[in-house]
Amino acid sequence: MRVRRGTGGAVVRVSIVGLGAIGQEVLKAVQARPGLRLVSVADPALVGRDAGDAAGVDACGVVVVAGAAEAFSRDVDVALVLTGSSVADVEPVVELAAAHGIDVISTCEDLAYADLATPELARRIDARAREGGITVVGTGVNPGFVMDRLPLTLAAACVRVDHVHVTRIVDAAKRRAPLRAKVGAGLTVEEFHAGVAARRLGHRGFGESCALVGLGLGLPLDDVRTTIEPVVAERPGVPAGRVAGLRQSAVGVRGGREIVRLDLEMSVGAPDPRDAVVIQGDPPLDVVIRGGTHGDRGTVGTVLSAIAPVIAAPPGLKTILDLALVA
Amino acid sequence: MRVRRGTGGAVVRVSIVGLGAIGQEVLKAVQARPGLRLVSVADPALVGRDAGDAAGVDACGVVVVAGAAEAFSRDVDVALVLTGSSVADVEPVVELAAAHGIDVISTCEDLAYADLATPELARRIDARAREGGITVVGTGVNPGFVMDRLPLTLAAACVRVDHVHVTRIVDAAKRRAPLRAKVGAGLTVEEFHAGVAARRLGHRGFGESCALVGLGLGLPLDDVRTTIEPVVAERPGVPAGRVAGLRQSAVGVRGGREIVRLDLEMSVGAPDPRDAVVIQGDPPLDVVIRGGTHGDRGTVGTVLSAIAPVIAAPPGLKTILDLALVA
Repeated sequence: MRVRRGTGGAVVRVSIVGLGAIGQEVLKAVQARPGLRLVSVADPALVGRDAGDAAGVDACGVVVVAGAAEAFSRDVDVALVLTGSSVADVEPVVELAAAHGIDVISTCEDLAYADLATPELARRIDARAREGGITVVGTGVNPGFVMDRLPLTLAAACVRVDHVHVTRIVDAAKRRAPLRAKVGAGLTVEEFHAGVAARRLGHRGFGESCALVGLGLGLPLDDVRTTIEPVVAERPGVPAGRVAGLRQSAVGVRGGREIVRLDLEMSVGAPDPRDAVVIQGDPPLDVVIRGGTHGDRGTVGTVLSAIAPVIAAPPGLKTILDLALVA
Repeated sequence: MRVRRGTGGAVVRVSIVGLGAIGQEVLKAVQARPGLRLVSVADPALVGRDAGDAAGVDACGVVVVAGAAEAFSRDVDVALVLTGSSVADVEPVVELAAAHGIDVISTCEDLAYADLATPELARRIDARAREGGITVVGTGVNPGFVMDRLPLTLAAACVRVDHVHVTRIVDAAKRRAPLRAKVGAGLTVEEFHAGVAARRLGHRGFGESCALVGLGLGLPLDDVRTTIEPVVAERPGVPAGRVAGLRQSAVGVRGGREIVRLDLEMSVGAPDPRDAVVIQGDPPLDVVIRGGTHGDRGTVGTVLSAIAPVIAAPPGLKTILDLALVA
């Protein structure tokens, strides 16, 4: 049968704030995707350079500026904010975006559910976003996909959900050096614990994913408990007795009962890398992504895929629960 | 950390149109889910009976009426229309719902993407829905989940998608007799082909899922080709030489290249029942739901899960692409 073609939408003008490793990959993906046009890039470390050149691809005629204020002085529809991990880090950029009427998609992990750890900040950002008529959302592969959007998509096929268990196992040997640093690979156990205490180590946005799952199930959690411990195991490339990576868990409890459990291992040489979602309920579901979802590539993908739904969404600080699948 | 509880929303008043096997299961699920209240049920075959009693559970005080006109004369927020498979079958009910300002969620397979086979009817329904301020959507486990929503949710984690392949293998021995009848189990090969020609056999909504995937990928298909063939194999409970079930395929093509492939086998004793999604792209994804998603239970789940997003959605004839994950 014949399928009618959709009409092409208008070009979306994109600004990138933060041209680090992820920002550079996002830039390449924006350039490659029809319907998106890169109009400005901000990164204080790369001021004056051509953004394409700085990202290791062809020069693109967009000169990197120092900050969002300059980047947003152009006509921009959506800003991809790829800088800090805490809501306080990105708040000033969101305020600027609101003043310019620019939607925001950010990989800031805590912004995935800002209400959890910083409810007052969340309320302020939501108010500013509504005033400015913009949508603000935090997403990425995790938080944003593996441990929240994916299990909730699966749970939507269930009549009843009793428990959700997500496992993500990442072989850090196959990822970038910053990931290995983030998981403490090569440290002593003492250094690991000191790094965790100083919040230099560990995966961010974990409690946020857990709380989002409870919220999405219609079973808001009473409590989210997170733990983190070193993986000390004989692994190629890891000195004996040193840390190969970490194991983090988040448990979401409601009415004294565990509803959600998230288990994350990111370590050098982790066996059987995968993402898995097991839903106890009616019907039960047992799902595995063999080999797992590549973290960096998945983050770039989720950010780009959020552009159309965010543009279509009503104003305010939103979560991935609020977005249409495609728009 | 402490999680703030959400505020409970208002009770949603539900009408069920069609109290067949799925309707009865939907009724039980509506009764079991907080926040939903069953206010009317229509089914010409069960007029005058208590709907709960007719569904094999406790009497619920809702007396079954003959048709949607009567059912919609009550104060209803959303109608669950669980009757026909063709858009023309359900159009009159949708017209009534529009006149009463009642949102519609239907398991009508062709309604999942009415634009594919019946574009004029789709435009008329869309216009009526907008006039009446209602949202209309077709969903279920398939179409609605396994072969469209799920692969598109996964694809949203990709920077680039080259090809999507979904496989669904259902052991018909473990499902209801109507499913075995629908797949031709026990027929001769000649009877099977006659049944296909008469559209008595086969899975509906297959081309619709394929087209939705193309649309959701931003790669609207030029053509969707569907095939159907009998599975003739030695299987317990199937007389030698008779049909055990069917294999259906849909292939979506764009610019001469295959973009989407959907393979469905539903047969008595089908080995290794599962749902699988393989995405070739960046990153590639290889996903399996071990044992598969139970068809009836999944359909009931998807219908109930659509209620909140449909209520939140703007008016018009929508697809599962347009709905928020949770709302």
